[in-house]
Order: sequence, then structure tokens, then C-alpha cells
Amino acid sequence: MKIVTRISELPHDVGTSVGLVPTMGGFHDGHLQLMKTARAERDLVVVSLFVNPTQFGPSEDFERYPRDRDKDAALAKKVGVDILFAPEVGEIYPRPGTTVHVPVVSTHWEGASRPGHFAGVATVVCKLFNIVRPEVAYFGLKDLQQCLVISRMVEDLNIPVRVSLQPTVREADGLALSSRNVYLTEEERQLGPLIFQQLTACKQLLHSSILTHDQIDEALKQSKVKLEDAGFRVDYFELIELATAHSTRSTSMPTALIAAAQLGKTRLIDNILL
Amino acid sequence: MKIVTRISELPHDVGTSVGLVPTMGGFHDGHLQLMKTARAERDLVVVSLFVNPTQFGPSEDFERYPRDRDKDAALAKKVGVDILFAPEVGEIYPRPGTTVHVPVVSTHWEGASRPGHFAGVATVVCKLFNIVRPEVAYFGLKDLQQCLVISRMVEDLNIPVRVSLQPTVREADGLALSSRNVYLTEEERQLGPLIFQQLTACKQLLHSSILTHDQIDEALKQSKVKLEDAGFRVDYFELIELATAHSTRSTSMPTALIAAAQLGKTRLIDNILL
Repeated sequence: MKIVTRISELPHDVGTSVGLVPTMGGFHDGHLQLMKTARAERDLVVVSLFVNPTQFGPSEDFERYPRDRDKDAALAKKVGVDILFAPEVGEIYPRPGTTVHVPVVSTHWEGASRPGHFAGVATVVCKLFNIVRPEVAYFGLKDLQQCLVISRMVEDLNIPVRVSLQPTVREADGLALSSRNVYLTEEERQLGPLIFQQLTACKQLLHSSILTHDQIDEALKQSKVKLEDAGFRVDYFELIELATAHSTRSTSMPTALIAAAQLGKTRLIDNILL
Repeated sequence: MKIVTRISELPHDVGTSVGLVPTMGGFHDGHLQLMKTARAERDLVVVSLFVNPTQFGPSEDFERYPRDRDKDAALAKKVGVDILFAPEVGEIYPRPGTTVHVPVVSTHWEGASRPGHFAGVATVVCKLFNIVRPEVAYFGLKDLQQCLVISRMVEDLNIPVRVSLQPTVREADGLALSSRNVYLTEEERQLGPLIFQQLTACKQLLHSSILTHDQIDEALKQSKVKLEDAGFRVDYFELIELATAHSTRSTSMPTALIAAAQLGKTRLIDNILL
């Protein structure tokens, strides 16, 4: 595996089927699963490792975000990655520059809680697509709204990249893998799986019979209350349609249940497709 | 020459050196010169003909903008264009979508006079680059600030396209060719060349000796007064540095004189590099 820090050092082989896995490092089995899928499907696998400052708010955890390039490089090498592209901030942003803004799917939820977050995500992913020029880019569904934002950007801007969305990888007890899980205290770690339990329970309820709007409201509220009672500060627990990422009370279109909750100092998000 | 209206009908031949000339139609010798240059330099020449609604303000001339596809197609064919890509609005914008925002170079002058104009330009050019995937794209320096915005976008977003900026083509009397010149009355057409005369005179003055800031101010003001006295409503007549497109009073960096003025119902722009 080659570690590359300069854009100019990346190969641009015409005719090679390139797979890109964009990451911010802190590799866990979720990242490694994306890399393994890319490895199985493509000729050349590029993993980008870049903690993107423009997607963090001023009061967020950009500085303390888990960084361990050597450990990440060893893990990537083990699953057969060809190139680890790990640029410095100045290589990606030599100065404040052009930004990409995705409407509709980026306005609510993470977009509302983290102003500017999705413009930062869309901009850096647009740049990485232009830099690496993959045939396919792999993203984890754990960050569902991010997946919707990137898919929408690719469609809107006619970007010649196929976006492959891969299932969330979970701990045995259901907690979605996340680089931020390392922030959890032992006690918080025990509570963590309750988010997915509530998502699963709520999904079962919604699938058990055709519910009225009021009944769906009540089901979402009950899940929220159970999380709050356990010690979470719930940001949202909602039913959304995938096309717009806006709330819905109809399950006739593709939908998902999404949740974000603060546990101590750590913000956890998760979702389940319906 | 093939006329294509659907994105899916465009070829994507690997290994062919594609040149793209993005246009809004109303072809004059400025457009044809860009096509001839592309023809001389590249294997496959694609001209896009798309009057882009998102770069027009609500009170601007989107509806009455000169449109004559058959005439344009005949002219393009004559200079050896391979593909005329002339999509309908719905093919490019199936719905309101993702936008691209270029900072610094787009804030003043045309950006200030025409809010949203450069976001519209950047977005459609980004899309056309992704749709056609040219090696080189050709633009006329007549729209200098547009050239700076596109160059900056390409650099900021790492777009793998080379931007080739070509000299402004002029009438014998100096009037810069523009699709909007057809709006001019006979009397206005006679007055038109005064913009370029003032740009040229001002350039000569700036080159004749090293002027103080106040003397440059005065030279710009004099040109503005001469245009106003002749019947123009001058929007701006300025010295800018090319790196930022902001005003400067130093000519030690690459600079240009830029002008925009209304003549009757027609807004004319022009510039001269120093």
C-alpha cells in the first residue's frame, strides 16, 4: 500500500476501475467493510483519510477528533487498500474557496443541528471525486443524511461517479460503529445500544399495522421519551422520506427512521430503513 | 455535425481529446473563433448551446435572449464542430438543485449588479464539465469576470479540465462582439465603440508613466464622465487585479480595466488586460 499526501502524486490511469472510500480516519469495522467491498469490486482501491475542517462547526470536535494515521494505515493495508491518500489541510484548502450547496435533503436534522456541515461535506466530496476520479465511491448508511446529500449532489451536478451505499456495521449489542464511540464513558457505552433498540421497536410498530398520522406521532414520541428517561438528550427521532429527507407520516414511499441524541459529551446518530 | 439534446446521447470515448465551447447561442465571430481554436487543437469538438435560466435575474432578458438554433447549427457546422449539444431546460435542471458558489472573484462588478448571476454560471459550467468531460474548455475574455470565476472554480474544486481563455473578437470600430449587440438601435450602435476607446485611452495613460493612486482615480473618473456625456449610464469603469477581481490602484500585479454601461435598454461590458 502506498501512502500519498500530495494530489500530484496520485495516479490517473485511464482504463482502471477505481474505487474510492472517503473517510476521516479513526478506522473501525464500518470503514474496513467499505474497503473490503471496494477491494472485491474494483481494480484500484483508494481510501482518503482527511479530517475535513469545513464540516465541523466552531464549537464541535475538530481538534479532538480521533487521529492515528499509523494505526489507520496498518488497518487499511491489511484489507488490501492500494493507496491511502492522507493530505494535509493546506493541500485540500490552499485558501478559502468555492463551495457546493445541496438543497432540500440538507436543510433538516444534521443540517439544522450543524449549520454549514453539509456544505462542508458536499464540497470536500466533490473535490475528492475530482481529485481521485473514481468509478464508484463507497459510503456507509450509518450517516444516512450524508448519503442522501452526496447522492443528490452527484445527480444534480451530473458527476460521473456511482455512489454505493453500504449497510451500517454494528457492535454485537446493536450500537452503530462510529469513530466518536471512543468518546463514550463505560456507563454511556452500556446505554448506547438503546438508540438502535428504539429504532427497531418503532420500525416493528410501524410495520405491524397501518398506523394513522397520530399513531405514528405517538410512536415516535414514546421512543423519544424512553431515550430521554434513560439519560439521552434527544435531538430528533423522526420518520423521513428518503427522496427529500423531510418528515413524513406516510410509509408508502421509501422511508427511514432517524435519530440523533447526546449522551454526556458525545452526540450519537443512527437510523433504520423501512 | 451531430445535434444532441439528451445527455445520454453524448459519447464518452476514452482516449479522445475533447474540447468544449460552452455557449448560450446567438453565434457571432467571437464564438466561431473559439470553435475554430478548439477545432485546431482537439480531436472532438463539442459546443453546448444552452440559454441558462439560473444566470439571469428576474428582471433580465432571459425570455428575449437571441435564440436561433438552426442558424447557430449551420454556423457551427461550417467551422467543423462535431457535436452541438442543445438540451432543453428540463434536461439540465429536472428540478431546482445543487449550486456552486465561487467566492472573492464573484462578489463585485457583474456579481454585484447581477445577484446570483455567477452562482448560475458556475453551477451550469460545473454541470457541463461533468456531462461532456472535456480535456480543455474554451471561453472568451470578453466576459473577463466570468473567466476568473470559472478558473477559480476549476482550481478550488480540483476539476480536471484545462480552461483556455481566448482574446475578445471586435468589430472593425472596436465594439466587442456580443450576442446582445443585436438589441442596439442604429444610433446606439454608433456610440458602442466608445467603451473600448475609453478603455484603450485609459490603458495608454496608465502605461505612459507611473501614476499615483489619485491620478489613477482621476483617469478612471474622466473615462466615466466621457461615457456619461455621450449618453451611457456607466455601472463601473475600474482597474482590478486579476487574482481577486477587486479594485486596485497598483499595476505591479496582473490587472485589467473593466467597464459596464447601459446604452438605452442594452447593457454592454468590455475590458482590456494591462
